Amino acid sequence: MNNNPVNTSRIGVVTPSRARFSEPLLLACGRTLSEYELVYETYGELNADRSNAVLICHALSGNHHAAGYHSAEDRKPGWWDECVGPGKPIDTNHFHVVCLNNLGGCHGSTGPASVNPETGQSWGPDFPSLRVRDWVHSQARLADHLGIDCWAAVIGGSLGGMQAMRWALLYPQRLRHCVVIASALKLSAQNIAFNEIARQAIQSDPDFAGGHYLSKGLVPAQGLALARMVGHITYLSDDAMASKFGRDLRSGTLEPGTELGAEFQVQSYLRHQGSRFSNNFDANTYILMTQALDYFDLAREYGNDPVAAFREARCSFLVLSFSTDWRFSPGRSREIVNALIAADRSVTYAEIAADGGHDAFLMPIRRYLDVFSAYMQRVREPH
Amino acid sequence: MNNNPVNTSRIGVVTPSRARFSEPLLLACGRTLSEYELVYETYGELNADRSNAVLICHALSGNHHAAGYHSAEDRKPGWWDECVGPGKPIDTNHFHVVCLNNLGGCHGSTGPASVNPETGQSWGPDFPSLRVRDWVHSQARLADHLGIDCWAAVIGGSLGGMQAMRWALLYPQRLRHCVVIASALKLSAQNIAFNEIARQAIQSDPDFAGGHYLSKGLVPAQGLALARMVGHITYLSDDAMASKFGRDLRSGTLEPGTELGAEFQVQSYLRHQGSRFSNNFDANTYILMTQALDYFDLAREYGNDPVAAFREARCSFLVLSFSTDWRFSPGRSREIVNALIAADRSVTYAEIAADGGHDAFLMPIRRYLDVFSAYMQRVREPH
Repeated sequence: MNNNPVNTSRIGVVTPSRARFSEPLLLACGRTLSEYELVYETYGELNADRSNAVLICHALSGNHHAAGYHSAEDRKPGWWDECVGPGKPIDTNHFHVVCLNNLGGCHGSTGPASVNPETGQSWGPDFPSLRVRDWVHSQARLADHLGIDCWAAVIGGSLGGMQAMRWALLYPQRLRHCVVIASALKLSAQNIAFNEIARQAIQSDPDFAGGHYLSKGLVPAQGLALARMVGHITYLSDDAMASKFGRDLRSGTLEPGTELGAEFQVQSYLRHQGSRFSNNFDANTYILMTQALDYFDLAREYGNDPVAAFREARCSFLVLSFSTDWRFSPGRSREIVNALIAADRSVTYAEIAADGGHDAFLMPIRRYLDVFSAYMQRVREPH
Repeated sequence: MNNNPVNTSRIGVVTPSRARFSEPLLLACGRTLSEYELVYETYGELNADRSNAVLICHALSGNHHAAGYHSAEDRKPGWWDECVGPGKPIDTNHFHVVCLNNLGGCHGSTGPASVNPETGQSWGPDFPSLRVRDWVHSQARLADHLGIDCWAAVIGGSLGGMQAMRWALLYPQRLRHCVVIASALKLSAQNIAFNEIARQAIQSDPDFAGGHYLSKGLVPAQGLALARMVGHITYLSDDAMASKFGRDLRSGTLEPGTELGAEFQVQSYLRHQGSRFSNNFDANTYILMTQALDYFDLAREYGNDPVAAFREARCSFLVLSFSTDWRFSPGRSREIVNALIAADRSVTYAEIAADGGHDAFLMPIRRYLDVFSAYMQRVREPH
């Protein structure tokens, strides 16, 4: 490990790696993937006894590029660069960080846009339906591949937090800490409803072509953009949108006497976000990921008792929530915490006052970074 | 007035009326409607001195059919039947109630689906853009037509409440009471964003055809359904959806080992609501109404000072909000109340504990009906 302060400034340029798995993977749906690839990045050095590895699980629209840059000219860092790097909560001066693109993803790992070896065509909508547990099993194989027997911590926000919790139940001996940020034991009806709208928006775009858009040279761009807009609004808080946009106009006027409609800043911002996303994300992957979210129910097979579920776990937990997050509200995190306490597990909980809504888990909020760093300091300590 | 208790049971069958206006109406956008029709219903008898008339202003997807039935076989009463009728808050044993389909609507009043007399074709997207004040002016003409100089009360929920407030500023001598339910001085950025998604959903449906779907024999059904789903979710509270649907399945299973996806009750419910709406509502009207909502800003022309705005008013106010309404939250109603107090106007305010979200204003919630009835009792008293 290098504690040289010269090294504490940034991760710099990173290059993704690729692992190929040829041992068939039996999925929760009953189907089997005969072979698959996972794309991942690592930051920081693995120590001699391989005890400092941390797994980051990504959320709905995430990927393996959590931190650093892909080239010297790259101006946009990885999606969790605020929390991953030298001197940051997941401190790459001390941890060896692994982040992968989940199976079914669209950033290099095997997914609906990949070629189905049995047909020679892209999978499209025929790619197997995935559950959170399938991701966990595939991540365990990646750990085997990397020679990591036990993670110092498995960490995730939102859908990533669901993977972290599932890790604690499926592989209790393979993680020492579990960090669950802005997540839930299962989605509420409202959350399922928002995901349903996103899927409907995609599926009703004629260019979706029943999921076979790739083979027809189409992109359901309007549907994807709409889906993203729904997500984007609901991941922000009302307050965050008010302070970011208010009722500022981008064009037109609200003065009487003009037929020219006014356009609010928030409208053009949303359209921009939607359109950017539709150029970078695969529609079938989006549907697959939202279904994994909807179907996740940590305690279902434990008699719907999260306390019984968490009795399987052997690790310690950090649970974090954000005051204005209304898709994964603090109440949902408290359900996790209460079940952990009742199951007699070690748990630290903090509700962070933040006006960023669900997206706050990606933001550099002082108290969030401090609590997260303090806990990760504990993860580093000899065990 | 008939106080016979035999009469207190129901409104029964009602027949809409139609008023034709041939005096041109100058609109806020600068254009003029040379002629137009308004469809309306009335319930209860107008008294001898014409002092018991009440105007109900409808919201985004409402119409003139607020109460009663359209035939003996009709099983679905008007949209506000819980609050309008004998013995109900707006008691038709005492009030003469008028409710119209707003200009630009799609239930009989002149709107985008009507024929433009200058072209002989339906207006479609060329129908003039409307503001809340245009509705108020057209409603004032309807009052003239009906011989009503002064309303006992102008009443509305949501977008209807915006019309009621605008009435109080534009025609201060023509109403004695103003009832504003689950409304706001102006929309927040979040609200505008949800409306923008609804419009995008409609406009990106290929069958929208730039708004000219009628002349092409098309209906943008998918887009309208999506727009309605967005509205529907956001008008309900998380709690209301949880108690109505939870995570109940309609089909399929969450058990591992099956490829058959599960469908949650909330998904099929949403699709049903969306599809029903798309058969009954005009897409151009939906766009027009959401724009009127977005553009409404009660105090804009009063130096953005709602206190200065309300100094124009001469009537008394009842303001009501619902605890779980997150699209028009109690905080927005308190802004109205605080401005009214600062302007030295008479105001009664109640926040109703209810888990129905924004749609609570349509529901038979005991305390809501009681507060509303008690205030309307005061409206009836000799002045």
